[in-house]
Amino acid sequence: MKQMKKIINSPQDVVPEMVDGLVRSYPEYLERIPDTEAVVRSDKASMKGKVGIVSGGGSGHEPAHAGFVGKGMLSAAVCGQVFTSPTPDQIYKAIQAVDQGKGVFLVIKNYSGDVMNFEMAKDMADVDGIKVKSIIVDDDIAVENSLYTQGKRGVAGTVIMHKLVGAAADQGASLDELEELAKNALPHISTLAVALSAATVPEVGKPGFELADDEIEYGVGIHSEPGYRREKIKTSKKLVGELITKLDEQQHLDPEKQYAVLVNGMGATPLMEQYIFSHDVLDKLAEKKIKPAFMKVGNYMTSIDMAGISLTIFELTDKKWLEYLNYSVETVGW
Amino acid sequence: MKQMKKIINSPQDVVPEMVDGLVRSYPEYLERIPDTEAVVRSDKASMKGKVGIVSGGGSGHEPAHAGFVGKGMLSAAVCGQVFTSPTPDQIYKAIQAVDQGKGVFLVIKNYSGDVMNFEMAKDMADVDGIKVKSIIVDDDIAVENSLYTQGKRGVAGTVIMHKLVGAAADQGASLDELEELAKNALPHISTLAVALSAATVPEVGKPGFELADDEIEYGVGIHSEPGYRREKIKTSKKLVGELITKLDEQQHLDPEKQYAVLVNGMGATPLMEQYIFSHDVLDKLAEKKIKPAFMKVGNYMTSIDMAGISLTIFELTDKKWLEYLNYSVETVGW
Repeated sequence: MKQMKKIINSPQDVVPEMVDGLVRSYPEYLERIPDTEAVVRSDKASMKGKVGIVSGGGSGHEPAHAGFVGKGMLSAAVCGQVFTSPTPDQIYKAIQAVDQGKGVFLVIKNYSGDVMNFEMAKDMADVDGIKVKSIIVDDDIAVENSLYTQGKRGVAGTVIMHKLVGAAADQGASLDELEELAKNALPHISTLAVALSAATVPEVGKPGFELADDEIEYGVGIHSEPGYRREKIKTSKKLVGELITKLDEQQHLDPEKQYAVLVNGMGATPLMEQYIFSHDVLDKLAEKKIKPAFMKVGNYMTSIDMAGISLTIFELTDKKWLEYLNYSVETVGW
Repeated sequence: MKQMKKIINSPQDVVPEMVDGLVRSYPEYLERIPDTEAVVRSDKASMKGKVGIVSGGGSGHEPAHAGFVGKGMLSAAVCGQVFTSPTPDQIYKAIQAVDQGKGVFLVIKNYSGDVMNFEMAKDMADVDGIKVKSIIVDDDIAVENSLYTQGKRGVAGTVIMHKLVGAAADQGASLDELEELAKNALPHISTLAVALSAATVPEVGKPGFELADDEIEYGVGIHSEPGYRREKIKTSKKLVGELITKLDEQQHLDPEKQYAVLVNGMGATPLMEQYIFSHDVLDKLAEKKIKPAFMKVGNYMTSIDMAGISLTIFELTDKKWLEYLNYSVETVGW
């Protein structure tokens, strides 16, 4: 077996050391909630009188989610073990840490473990009289049902959801208003990925799947879940063509409408390739007479050291959504 | 030979398509200078009455340098072919595009090709009556002289230099003041890297060097230039120990002094590993009773898809330098 080559100390210590490294590198933004692997804003004043926003999930998707904690975005993020849901008690501690009497809104990716544990934390908060509502993000259009998931998976579109509810909460939206915003936006966020190689979970020590030297796979998930087709590697233009065709089937792209685009590197794919891919995305959209009203390119929802890219298209049916995307934030990762 | 696996169209088109993808994705920050691969701020008003700051070099180091173009940082960046200096005429066009009558300051990495071509562009500007001064950054302490370099190489510390002179220029510093600032700061910026794998230049199609599955190399350059030692891969703590020992020999780390730290991923190394490495950097500095006054972790000066990390330590002998590092910017990459 090929030896795993990573800059770590021991596979068991990856998450606590990573969380520690993050909060100690950015004390002006982040601090750890005591006795947890959860991260909260250090600028507590920015949360005052506002609904708290909590997200999280398994680690391995950095900067998601802890890198999006800060004024204008998340209030706290809970970091589970690698590709493993955080426990309900940790999620509950994050809810407690951010509640300001206005309630707490949870952004959950649609994985069975996350859904179960976040729901349990919500029940614990209910008992304590903390009002909690939530959205389950399922933006990955690759497949219905998957390993670890009933329905569609939650992937890079989750970061868009963070941005929307984070901006709205900062502007004073109520818990009910945030729920409505999230529910309205969700069906308009669609993502699809292409993988060139799989992630290696440190405790496993080998890649989650194997692709031949000349092979790619469409629709792979962020925990190495299978996609919908393997084939020989193509040009960036052709990869983009495939992804946009599928996203178009879902979204019925329309030159009369406004769109936001997120091009997301999966961890090991350099910006060079991401910008080339973006160039082809913009060309392909231009063929459809669409010019995105908002665009972002970089590593936002990664899969450890997976090589690949995901493309998220978000139809801006409400003009406030564009304002939310452009709203100023103070985070490490956005 | 193992097939190169990249999301590109053709190796020849990598740079123009990448530059196009970047500026079209971020039109609010960036635009292309006509007939060049150079990128300039779209917010021209932000340059008014100020000294222009121009940097650049071979491509393959994204987000450097074009990702640092924006208010408070660079005025323009010139993108050469991959790992190849931009031509003097392109650099000259960037100088012309940003000059506001106050002169233009060039930040050059110490590679023979860059130094020669930026100097030629400076001469062209002199003829035109545009005052130009420059700094040659040589922060990599790994080796004296190298492939492509007389003296030490310029690496991630260059981004620190962009930030310093960019902030000072935005605050109205004169060309002479910028030169003094850059000259004063330069000797206090030191960088050292460790590589786990080499970059693959698209037109070459194979990695710049080969490391065994269990091997790392200290002191590798950002164009796959040789480092100073190969050995079996170690824990993050031990890698950090080696780098900080060498940086300490150079800088004589002192608890009475203030420091800024930049942990820089080389392209394919995920944030997970970068945060763990940062955790160990902070521990090692804490042993020396040093707590950085400023820290940043992420991909800033990459080497295409190289796996590895560099560590930059910057001694803040002038308290203004910390203000400059914290000064607000509007860029894609900082």
